[in-house]
Amino acid sequence: MKKVTARRPSGFVEYLPQQQAQLQNMIDTIRSVYELYGFLPVETPAIELAEVLLAKGGGETENEVYRFSKGDKEYALHYDLTVPLARFVAEHENDLSFPFRRYQMQKVWRAERAQKGRFREFYQCDADIIGSSSVGHDAELVALTIDVFTALSLGDFTVRINNRKLISGFLEAIGLQAKTSDILHAIDKLEKIGVDEVIKLLKSAGCGDDDSAQIINFVNTTGTTAEVFDKLRGLSIKNETFSSGLASMYELVEQVEALGVDPSKYIIDFRIVRGLDYYTGTVYETVFEKYPEFGSVCSGGRYDNLAEYYTKTSLPGVGISIGLSRLFALVQEAGLLGKNIQPVQLYIVNFGSSSRELALKTAQEFRKHGIKTQVDLDGQKPEKQFKYADKLNIPFVVVIGDEEVKSNSVELKDMQTGKQETLAIDTAINRLKSIS
Amino acid sequence: MKKVTARRPSGFVEYLPQQQAQLQNMIDTIRSVYELYGFLPVETPAIELAEVLLAKGGGETENEVYRFSKGDKEYALHYDLTVPLARFVAEHENDLSFPFRRYQMQKVWRAERAQKGRFREFYQCDADIIGSSSVGHDAELVALTIDVFTALSLGDFTVRINNRKLISGFLEAIGLQAKTSDILHAIDKLEKIGVDEVIKLLKSAGCGDDDSAQIINFVNTTGTTAEVFDKLRGLSIKNETFSSGLASMYELVEQVEALGVDPSKYIIDFRIVRGLDYYTGTVYETVFEKYPEFGSVCSGGRYDNLAEYYTKTSLPGVGISIGLSRLFALVQEAGLLGKNIQPVQLYIVNFGSSSRELALKTAQEFRKHGIKTQVDLDGQKPEKQFKYADKLNIPFVVVIGDEEVKSNSVELKDMQTGKQETLAIDTAINRLKSIS
Repeated sequence: MKKVTARRPSGFVEYLPQQQAQLQNMIDTIRSVYELYGFLPVETPAIELAEVLLAKGGGETENEVYRFSKGDKEYALHYDLTVPLARFVAEHENDLSFPFRRYQMQKVWRAERAQKGRFREFYQCDADIIGSSSVGHDAELVALTIDVFTALSLGDFTVRINNRKLISGFLEAIGLQAKTSDILHAIDKLEKIGVDEVIKLLKSAGCGDDDSAQIINFVNTTGTTAEVFDKLRGLSIKNETFSSGLASMYELVEQVEALGVDPSKYIIDFRIVRGLDYYTGTVYETVFEKYPEFGSVCSGGRYDNLAEYYTKTSLPGVGISIGLSRLFALVQEAGLLGKNIQPVQLYIVNFGSSSRELALKTAQEFRKHGIKTQVDLDGQKPEKQFKYADKLNIPFVVVIGDEEVKSNSVELKDMQTGKQETLAIDTAINRLKSIS
Repeated sequence: MKKVTARRPSGFVEYLPQQQAQLQNMIDTIRSVYELYGFLPVETPAIELAEVLLAKGGGETENEVYRFSKGDKEYALHYDLTVPLARFVAEHENDLSFPFRRYQMQKVWRAERAQKGRFREFYQCDADIIGSSSVGHDAELVALTIDVFTALSLGDFTVRINNRKLISGFLEAIGLQAKTSDILHAIDKLEKIGVDEVIKLLKSAGCGDDDSAQIINFVNTTGTTAEVFDKLRGLSIKNETFSSGLASMYELVEQVEALGVDPSKYIIDFRIVRGLDYYTGTVYETVFEKYPEFGSVCSGGRYDNLAEYYTKTSLPGVGISIGLSRLFALVQEAGLLGKNIQPVQLYIVNFGSSSRELALKTAQEFRKHGIKTQVDLDGQKPEKQFKYADKLNIPFVVVIGDEEVKSNSVELKDMQTGKQETLAIDTAINRLKSIS
């Protein structure tokens, strides 16, 4: 038979089981924290009607959308979870209670230029609260993000918080609102190219020396949240947008504090300007300070109107999104993935016939107690069985031979230490339960 | 702004959160049982190269595949999880240990004619063991299937087991192998149209009266497994294929018994003939006897060579597949979904300012103990907050007012009974933990 080479299209990643178990563990962890905060599960079809999904039209994403027709219909694969959420909320508006808190963790597809760490199929893990303008929700998302990354145990991280109204109001106040886009573009580069180069960019955008100094001074406002608020008030800016942003940021911090969040985990940071064309209030990014090359691993913010292309109802909201596939690839390469996940905990070596029969019984006992168990069913030589268990990184092996058949005990071997003990089945079960 | 009607393409289903939580619970249950049996997680891209995915070519599925081109590549969405598994195993052959046990639970897509209970996007939940011909694996899949459906708590079910070699050998022995296809087609209709109509079909397929009687007698062989084996031996069939099938079935039953499986949950059933053109040994179906219209909700069997289109290595295997989306729709409609899943367990009513502050603190306490908790963050009137919690079916509400701020206690209300108690926070936490 003619063979076709088994291969995937470029930009599409898949993992061997051990890694897949780690990815799955991250998905489970994120989901459990989302659920603790009362977010409800939503899953939308991967395929949408092109006309509906691309209602907004234009934009740089449109070229990256996988589109196709089948029969007389034009379809498109979703390229994020926000547009499907808008469509979902508009379609089921009358069946939902607002504020509507939903989480959604699915793969999305974008035909991006294939490059390292960029995938054409990737997981997004989103949490949004729709239908409320109350900044309490913005505050909860800070606590949620911090709980998620704490639970993921990937090392130090900081949630950086900004508010679009602060920078907009500030630029209005100094009469530079017409240059907002260029100025934000320059600020965005601050971490990468440094102050001097940013000042050059600001100059070429038409900012005078004094303007640039003020902008840099504003953007570099740092310190504890109390210090930042002091400095902002000290600027004595008389601008309604700015005041509104300041009030909102203040309330957010108050509620984040009431939530008992570790103050070392979040910071007000005016350098966060990406997404400011889309977000209208609070903006978040989450960074691993020791790994600036990761960029933001969880971004989000507040928007005024989620579903304006689908419904007349105004639906303000706030949300975050974790680009999980990219995060997984990054932390894997950086060696930040903590504990090894063992998809199988116990392997049962046996010698066929009566030994096999007891092996099967024993396996069911362990499984009943939640121990993930595999039995040799191929009658291979014991050495081969041990080698197999070792290759699969199964941490414990039970050997069932003639002696065990007679005595109803098992020999438990710790594959890492090599230590071997003869134990009653119950004792062995409890031992494994206490470890897993 | 011009609005686009928010809608999905036909054949694509999505659920409101309460239902989605139930579907998710089924996914979690199936996955946990698959893992208990030592199956390893695999997830493959939804998009494959058309040339690779459709290497086998032809077949009725090919028209149902969603295909498209992007750039200079031809892509196709996977339409099952078996072909991607074959591609995966062939691609990673050198990195896998055989027998390779993998589970895979993903959506697949088929452009089937849209009709009730038929979806164009649906979940499949597969478990396969690749690289071994040992019938012990076939036996474990019987125990696995029974454990899965027991854990799903959807009511009575039976796993029906057949072996392709028994019917093939039987037909060879009575000289009817040339008519196998027509005969199987007739047998497949037995449950629907009854014996008399099937005999008519057999006649028009060219079977004599005696042949038909023998076939019906064989196919209707029922009873306990011991009785079935007695009857089969009593047929005194001298045919190698038959003998091999009988030996294999006998060994399977022996090992299923060693696994301690409830004998009322499985049956040898020669009416199971679907899939016999694909499977080469053991064949399984799982049915809800009280709901024959469901058909088989979990099918599978043994095959000789998984990946013949991709690799020279012969990879025999055995597997099962649960068509989860269809199953979910069926049991939902039949009212078989047992317990209601509560995505949120506790709602915290509060009255703004100092009450809000304590509400947020209290929420974090509950969350720390695994209670899925939502707080009112919109300062709505208490009646509105209660109404909201009620609409979301949240089973418990805690009210935090001035009294609670002073006393550091909470008032816990059971929304179903209406019963209200003032409790210390720890006591309330323990109460909710004991319920969930």
